[in-house]
Amino acid sequence: MGEFDLIERYFARPAKRSPLGNGDDCALLAPAPGMQLAVSSDMLVEGRHFLSTVAPERLGHKALAVNLSDLAACGAAPLAFTLALSLPAVDESWLAGFSRGLFALADEHDCELVGGDTTRGPLNICITVFGEVPAGKALLRSGAKPGDDIWVSGTLGDARLALEAFRGTLALSAEVFEQARRRMEQPTPRVALGIALRGIASSAVDVSDGLIGDLGHILASSRVGATLDADAAAALVAANKHAPGSADLFTREVLRTCALSGGDDYELVFTALVAARDTVLQAGITSATAVTRIGHIEAAPGLRIVDARGVPLAQHFTSFDHFA
Amino acid sequence: MGEFDLIERYFARPAKRSPLGNGDDCALLAPAPGMQLAVSSDMLVEGRHFLSTVAPERLGHKALAVNLSDLAACGAAPLAFTLALSLPAVDESWLAGFSRGLFALADEHDCELVGGDTTRGPLNICITVFGEVPAGKALLRSGAKPGDDIWVSGTLGDARLALEAFRGTLALSAEVFEQARRRMEQPTPRVALGIALRGIASSAVDVSDGLIGDLGHILASSRVGATLDADAAAALVAANKHAPGSADLFTREVLRTCALSGGDDYELVFTALVAARDTVLQAGITSATAVTRIGHIEAAPGLRIVDARGVPLAQHFTSFDHFA
Repeated sequence: MGEFDLIERYFARPAKRSPLGNGDDCALLAPAPGMQLAVSSDMLVEGRHFLSTVAPERLGHKALAVNLSDLAACGAAPLAFTLALSLPAVDESWLAGFSRGLFALADEHDCELVGGDTTRGPLNICITVFGEVPAGKALLRSGAKPGDDIWVSGTLGDARLALEAFRGTLALSAEVFEQARRRMEQPTPRVALGIALRGIASSAVDVSDGLIGDLGHILASSRVGATLDADAAAALVAANKHAPGSADLFTREVLRTCALSGGDDYELVFTALVAARDTVLQAGITSATAVTRIGHIEAAPGLRIVDARGVPLAQHFTSFDHFA
Repeated sequence: MGEFDLIERYFARPAKRSPLGNGDDCALLAPAPGMQLAVSSDMLVEGRHFLSTVAPERLGHKALAVNLSDLAACGAAPLAFTLALSLPAVDESWLAGFSRGLFALADEHDCELVGGDTTRGPLNICITVFGEVPAGKALLRSGAKPGDDIWVSGTLGDARLALEAFRGTLALSAEVFEQARRRMEQPTPRVALGIALRGIASSAVDVSDGLIGDLGHILASSRVGATLDADAAAALVAANKHAPGSADLFTREVLRTCALSGGDDYELVFTALVAARDTVLQAGITSATAVTRIGHIEAAPGLRIVDARGVPLAQHFTSFDHFA
């Protein structure tokens, strides 16, 4: 199968929102008047962003999800995406699964594939996503102010638990492993929450490299510091709450590490005025997304990590670096 | 050097046109009122789109040039691009050269880097480029009409000559090789010509996989056929004209094959009314780009390749397929 047949069979769909479908030299996009276009590119490489064991359908989902997560962090509504794909060989069952997972998530967010490129080479997936946001309303990393609460959406650390199980450093029951693995392989981009937080959150970022690393981007861009409650974050590890009322499955150290330094969470960490607490909770309800307060912004630079009683932790946490 | 240091050192530049510089979750773009955004993504892989011998500075140029060429084929003016880069290791001299070549071409076209991604993995360069074009004025593949002239810009086949020299199937003098190699490694995107052809060309495509393959996209999209003068195209191989007044350096068969099936030319092939010949020539002058008539569109489907006297050629020509 040649390049054009491959595109035709697995990726050609009728154009909807784009004035022109895919298949010309460029795709054409026309943002509505008063809207800015939010753009983000992410490249996924085997062994770095996914394991060779991942089902192609889940990989198709994840490749788009990590990009939609960037739109969510800006409060942008998804519009369209391009897909560039390098494949070692034309594997039809892989392509069928990959495109199924990709389009299932794309359709859920009404996000149209408008163009791209395919080539033969080591497996590499590069998606560029486009969203729109009213001019001046994008959530940025730079708006956090001393006194603001720090919030995080959803759950934390489960993707890291699954990764450690794959690495053999942790043993998980089959059921817990499957649940954690799904969080790693099929993250949920918090698009609706991002949109609901327009005009409410003072800053936002998505958690891809780990909570403290990504919160660090907010602190650096906003030129502020913060105190973070490690145990409030650790309580968000979903796999630990497997059986209602049951004892903790993991040690406190494992929970803190996975929640704070896990990576691959694709949750939103954001800040908002203390006076906006009810409004934030309402945005969580509107978007059917749990939101939890885990700390607060301070004028003093640096990140202070404390336990549930406010006592500073000696433990050292790092974030995930794709070049480390 | 970590991911963020790498971005900071080689790719961070102050924001110009984008409402937001790179460094947030998304870049923000605001097309001017009445403009559509043209978008194209290309992925470059070693051994498919460039050889390991290419100088990083030339590769930086080429990675952006092939994307600008897609904008040119739509008549769009460059605005911005994102860069996703997978690197086997952090090689500072490679990064310095690559970013120098990339930004030299970007600056020439006032095209701003607004975001991207870096990761460790097999070398892979994925650029998504954004341009703007007045709504409804984009050059498309689908507008060719029977009777239209077929034109091509610049020169053809030199990149293929260089590739064959690298492969050892052709011997070139050092001087001719260097000239041809530069065409392969540093193609010139015909951006000014594309813009000048708005409202004049009835269809356009850029020549990346070879003249007849890419002309084939126009024929398919426009549901027309064509007759193409192989010798008019073969006369555009620049390396053959090395010494003024000198004899041909290459056989007629080599020249025809390189011109028609060469690939990597990044010229524009386009169609226009016969009545617009002077206007097309004027657009060539305005944009300082040679334009040459090489055939005409016909209602009868299929591509008929003829020699300078109009006699059909028996020779079979193919285009380049990244999966063949």
